[in-house]
Amino acid sequence: MFISFEGIDGSGKSTQAWRLAEMLRARGHDVVLTREPGGSPGAEEIRALVLQGDPGRWSAETELLLFTAARRDHMERTIQPALAAGKIVICDRFADSTRMYQGLSRGDLRPLVDLLHDRMIGREPDMTVLIDMDPAAGLARALSRADPDNRFEAFGQSLQDQMRAGFLALAQEFPDRFRVIDGNRDIDAVAQDVSAAVLDRLDAG
Amino acid sequence: MFISFEGIDGSGKSTQAWRLAEMLRARGHDVVLTREPGGSPGAEEIRALVLQGDPGRWSAETELLLFTAARRDHMERTIQPALAAGKIVICDRFADSTRMYQGLSRGDLRPLVDLLHDRMIGREPDMTVLIDMDPAAGLARALSRADPDNRFEAFGQSLQDQMRAGFLALAQEFPDRFRVIDGNRDIDAVAQDVSAAVLDRLDAG
Repeated sequence: MFISFEGIDGSGKSTQAWRLAEMLRARGHDVVLTREPGGSPGAEEIRALVLQGDPGRWSAETELLLFTAARRDHMERTIQPALAAGKIVICDRFADSTRMYQGLSRGDLRPLVDLLHDRMIGREPDMTVLIDMDPAAGLARALSRADPDNRFEAFGQSLQDQMRAGFLALAQEFPDRFRVIDGNRDIDAVAQDVSAAVLDRLDAG
Repeated sequence: MFISFEGIDGSGKSTQAWRLAEMLRARGHDVVLTREPGGSPGAEEIRALVLQGDPGRWSAETELLLFTAARRDHMERTIQPALAAGKIVICDRFADSTRMYQGLSRGDLRPLVDLLHDRMIGREPDMTVLIDMDPAAGLARALSRADPDNRFEAFGQSLQDQMRAGFLALAQEFPDRFRVIDGNRDIDAVAQDVSAAVLDRLDAG
């Protein structure tokens, strides 16, 4: 089973991905917790190339190609081998983040995003957990962190609003795999809902 | 005018590209001499990521995405601005090398190569000079160089034969832009033929 976590910056999705991994391991599952961009040695090198340095150094199209290259490597070297070995893969961000960030914030690249995903990646998660969060609260939390790698967090309130709306639109576009969880609560309450949703899905086969 | 040079390793295409640039500059043209993979600061970083390290570190598909990202950056930052300013661009290798190396030597990726070129690059050189060379002589010349960056040169005679045949097939596929020059002669004789072909094309407008 392949589970991705999505959500705006500061939504707590990384924490929730980690909590879910702990819960599943405690129940005896073999879990690989990974992240994008990155998740394999080559993809982490591409991540550094994209996220470090002057934000304007790459065009949206070049950035899309680099993220797709990183995802391809991550799929080949980390995700597919783990799934083939019967493990549960939990990924902090996956293709939906590209649909959002390249497709919305950097011009209307969605058709190109979809084309590259279709031809070069070719698979979606079995389940995508969207941690839905008040954009103002998410932004405040994101800005309180000092992560030089995460330049996407400098986008500001109006873009954060668009991102939230965009993720909710993706959840409507892919209702079979998306589960929307209210992230405006304490961590334990959110984790309980995530666990319930994932266990429900695991029981369903 | 956008001119690319192609040919097997050791064919002398880099020398001929340099000689052509000198000839055109002597005639008063403003010339940008560039190369692939690379040719812009970002693309050179991607080149290093692809060509250095273990040759098996990237799959053919990931490598194709990285080369396409490098070419997109090279087009945006170096080639298109130069052409827009009325300069002549001479490029040592361009998309035909990807058609050859990714499409032939690393599995049948040609449809993917063409799709990515069509959607992400979208233009061919106005003229492609193919320096055609006896594969054995080219290989001997290539191996005599100590270029740690150029791992493609370790492919050996049989692949070198396939490359030569592949480039000639591309020349037949794109007869309007390809000019095939016999590279099995001394440098001056080859340079004279290249100059004549390019000046002929420049005069034709």
